[in-house]
Amino acid sequence: MNLNINYCSYCGADQLAEEIPAGDNMPRIVCSQCGSIHYQNPKIVAGCLVTWQDQVLLCRRAIEPRYGLWTMPAGFMENNESIEEAACRETFEEAQARVTLDGLYGFYSIPRISHVYVLFRGHLDKQEFGPGSESLEVKLFSEADIPWNDLAFNAVRVTLRHYFNDRKRGEFPLHLQTL
Amino acid sequence: MNLNINYCSYCGADQLAEEIPAGDNMPRIVCSQCGSIHYQNPKIVAGCLVTWQDQVLLCRRAIEPRYGLWTMPAGFMENNESIEEAACRETFEEAQARVTLDGLYGFYSIPRISHVYVLFRGHLDKQEFGPGSESLEVKLFSEADIPWNDLAFNAVRVTLRHYFNDRKRGEFPLHLQTL
Repeated sequence: MNLNINYCSYCGADQLAEEIPAGDNMPRIVCSQCGSIHYQNPKIVAGCLVTWQDQVLLCRRAIEPRYGLWTMPAGFMENNESIEEAACRETFEEAQARVTLDGLYGFYSIPRISHVYVLFRGHLDKQEFGPGSESLEVKLFSEADIPWNDLAFNAVRVTLRHYFNDRKRGEFPLHLQTL
Repeated sequence: MNLNINYCSYCGADQLAEEIPAGDNMPRIVCSQCGSIHYQNPKIVAGCLVTWQDQVLLCRRAIEPRYGLWTMPAGFMENNESIEEAACRETFEEAQARVTLDGLYGFYSIPRISHVYVLFRGHLDKQEFGPGSESLEVKLFSEADIPWNDLAFNAVRVTLRHYFNDRKRGEFPLHLQTL
């Protein structure tokens, strides 16, 4: 379970136990003092495969994990926003780019780390972009120049492969898969 | 913010403040004693529009909220599962039904409550189903018999409307929308 939970956030007790609550069928972190159940759920990573003409926009990460490697703009969806807002916000934060979304493109479950990636295709409104605070640099890449050996995440690799294959066929179906 | 966070789950201090951490741009719950940041993120509700021939399967809720009203089998995605596993698990838990998934069908952001619905179409493998512990009863409905005034959630109403419209056209595209 989550090693960062040492105290009950509701009552402050340190008597947390892993048990299956009544009416449930999964072990949860339960406070033995006040009975609060501390559920943990997957996080959504929203992002964008940003295109400009025949190129795609990648960001070189200025933060851990995978500092210095290339990624698509993407990050954790926040409370009180839509998935489209999340994808566009992350794109602006990491690449200072305004995009128009062209459709949902990648939906990847990553059960091992309890993340769900939700990625859109989107195109730059203008050829304007630059590094946000979480990026060292932001660059347009043609297919021949993609830094395949310096990509930050498997989800990025998978999405770029899908994109260049789909572009040849002129169809961009949703890719739903478990990584 | 979340009123259920009274104590830092990492160090147990009650000195939590709402502030924008360095390098961030959103207010977070931060522990003034140990510096832990308590992020909060949207939850995924995974579920299934279950069909059998020309009927759809609905469950009458045995739990709050919306006790006694009709819903599709759906619930919070758990850590360490894929979205398909989550949809099938919820369908089995609430309707004791085994389904084969026919495609991603509804993707709804609900920013007001920070939920993201991810709904599949799926068909019963056999005409076998029944109430799980969270359901009072489980029933197949023809279009003419849908209890439109007794549906538990707007996402259910929206999905059923899409389904009966799409069925007339013989196409079931993904519906991506904000509710």
